Amino acid sequence: MSFGFTVSQTDGLARRGVLTTPHGTVQTPAFMPVGTRGAVKGITFRDVRDAGAEIVLGNTYHLHLRPGDRLIARAGGLHRFIGWPHPILTDSGGYQVFSLAAMRKVTEAGVEFRSHLDGALCALSPEEATDIQARLGSDIAMVLDELIGTAGPDPGPSVAQGSDPGGAGAVRAAMERSVRWARRARTRMLQLRTDPAVAADVQVTNPGQAQFGIIQGGIDPGLRTESAQATVGIGFEAYAIGGLSVGEPVDVMYDVVGHTAPQLPVDRPRYLMGTGMPDDLVECVARGIDLFDCVLPTRNARNGQLLTRHGVLVIKNARYAEDRQPPDPGCGCYTCRTFSRAYLRHLFMAGEMTAATLLTVHNLYFYLDLMAKIREAIGFGSFGKLRQEFHQTFSRRPQQH
Amino acid sequence: MSFGFTVSQTDGLARRGVLTTPHGTVQTPAFMPVGTRGAVKGITFRDVRDAGAEIVLGNTYHLHLRPGDRLIARAGGLHRFIGWPHPILTDSGGYQVFSLAAMRKVTEAGVEFRSHLDGALCALSPEEATDIQARLGSDIAMVLDELIGTAGPDPGPSVAQGSDPGGAGAVRAAMERSVRWARRARTRMLQLRTDPAVAADVQVTNPGQAQFGIIQGGIDPGLRTESAQATVGIGFEAYAIGGLSVGEPVDVMYDVVGHTAPQLPVDRPRYLMGTGMPDDLVECVARGIDLFDCVLPTRNARNGQLLTRHGVLVIKNARYAEDRQPPDPGCGCYTCRTFSRAYLRHLFMAGEMTAATLLTVHNLYFYLDLMAKIREAIGFGSFGKLRQEFHQTFSRRPQQH
Repeated sequence: MSFGFTVSQTDGLARRGVLTTPHGTVQTPAFMPVGTRGAVKGITFRDVRDAGAEIVLGNTYHLHLRPGDRLIARAGGLHRFIGWPHPILTDSGGYQVFSLAAMRKVTEAGVEFRSHLDGALCALSPEEATDIQARLGSDIAMVLDELIGTAGPDPGPSVAQGSDPGGAGAVRAAMERSVRWARRARTRMLQLRTDPAVAADVQVTNPGQAQFGIIQGGIDPGLRTESAQATVGIGFEAYAIGGLSVGEPVDVMYDVVGHTAPQLPVDRPRYLMGTGMPDDLVECVARGIDLFDCVLPTRNARNGQLLTRHGVLVIKNARYAEDRQPPDPGCGCYTCRTFSRAYLRHLFMAGEMTAATLLTVHNLYFYLDLMAKIREAIGFGSFGKLRQEFHQTFSRRPQQH
Repeated sequence: MSFGFTVSQTDGLARRGVLTTPHGTVQTPAFMPVGTRGAVKGITFRDVRDAGAEIVLGNTYHLHLRPGDRLIARAGGLHRFIGWPHPILTDSGGYQVFSLAAMRKVTEAGVEFRSHLDGALCALSPEEATDIQARLGSDIAMVLDELIGTAGPDPGPSVAQGSDPGGAGAVRAAMERSVRWARRARTRMLQLRTDPAVAADVQVTNPGQAQFGIIQGGIDPGLRTESAQATVGIGFEAYAIGGLSVGEPVDVMYDVVGHTAPQLPVDRPRYLMGTGMPDDLVECVARGIDLFDCVLPTRNARNGQLLTRHGVLVIKNARYAEDRQPPDPGCGCYTCRTFSRAYLRHLFMAGEMTAATLLTVHNLYFYLDLMAKIREAIGFGSFGKLRQEFHQTFSRRPQQH
């Protein structure tokens, strides 16, 4: 099997489809649990699979630093190394370089940084990010892009590179550099695919790996359009929308997604990176997104927050001390089928790591089950009804029952 | 179902049997994973059950302090509260009072101590330990005993109470007090069983609960004999050997077990508390023990130590960095069926909690599978052969392959 994508049904802008990869298929719209360092935090892959995941995300930055992509290549690639034989997407490592690394220096060549683990000097270029992911052998690789915070509308082309960090000029500059980097990453990928000597030298572990371009441009519609046109012009297997869910208001994010998604090819999956809350998934499916990833369900679980149809349930709340109900009485996950809020609260208050595991099992199931319901609704032409009913029930405010 | 025990086969002093409890049966010899605070550390009960556990142990001290035995009784008892519908044994809480509590004062009435959680002043008496466990509703309750370190041979009756803490006189004194406390605990238990008003007042959640007496006496054979005779004379559903695996040489422990077990009724299960390494289980089954518990498989897992047929495998060892073998190639657990030593080492070095989970899954499976093999060997009259082959393979020194 190599990379492919088929849209089987649409309902408004929402699409139901099937993504094909060398390691199996993924029904879309899909949510990808984040397996940062080769494990989805808090649970085993058996539980990840039981929760309904068909694809997971691995973090190139973390795996590159430890245990190292060359070691993973020698083990036969990431799938074999981590024991997950199903589809995997890897990010480019860029996001962590820009958010975790101690020191970083961005030039046209790439980015230099110091490892957050031991301070070692490292470098990442569009070509190297491509090579690292080729060694990892994920089914979907992402191009390296330059990340900065969001800013206001664009002041026009070619203004103020570097003189206004995070400002509108910087957003344009980073977008334009990301397009140039994307072109270099694609060139490198095509070289790996067509030159067996180079592929052997790099130790490509998954010849069927696809590569996605990333649309940048902050919250400025014009920049997003420019980025989409330029990136689609390079020609990738598919495209992601990056640089969102970084602090901008949620309505702004929805607007950018609504503006950008229709500019991406209809016959390719659209991936919204790093989003989000459950209502974000519903709203962005409504705008034509097919793939999501986010640490939210796993991270919030470890912090004692359960996500349910009604919203956020903070398990340490004293009101749950003797509450014999499951976290979400309507949920079919192992945690909700077996345990009470009172027991989960007890485990959390006692600091038992099993609390993190059981909350993660629920949160992931909730996300993946929501995606399954969304796919079903699109299939029945009732996605609008699901969307309406979802918002009637779900609130971002902590639950009061 | 109420409490019962049937020996179906013997092989030398080793016995194969079935323990019956109000929450199901347990094949013996059996190992009981320790679920200190209502969870077996690092894994879910689904994994505990998958590993082959038929009974778990709960710690009365921890559950009494948090979330509280009265809260658990209101939730319907420990089985319902923690979501484990199978047999449970609870200790008396004494061990933790003597090992964890900040301050303690032992009198004939009982023991006063300060909670290790918040310094609150607490008290535990033979009667109160019985009542707490009646509220928890475990299938097997243990009597409160006085614990001290082991010491040399007994200097004779009634010497030096309190003037030689931990010495032989203190061992006798603690043994004699434990017998008096056991009598009080049994009196209280019979009152709970026969007086419905008292049972209702205490909130007994499992009327079929059995109560085990505990044999003390350190490493002195005479004291052990005295303790066994006096404790059996009181009359419990069964008996445990306490006060071992507290630092004495392993051969001494085997000798005490070999001396004491035959003095306990043949028609009752014999429980060796807090033991031990895998070879200890084999050796003590050979001396007539039916029940074991120990934190070793779960605690060592969290510390990165795998227990295998060959001995201890320290996963962080650099030799495993690229080792694609499973922890134990002959093991059928989820971890060994799915993951390599290299991957487990990576997760452990990265501090991923999933490392603790996967190592715990293996260690518990190894212990429970060993018990299953022991039971089978006893059934086939080949326990001696199993014992011999086990020692030829197993070493306590860290593995070098």
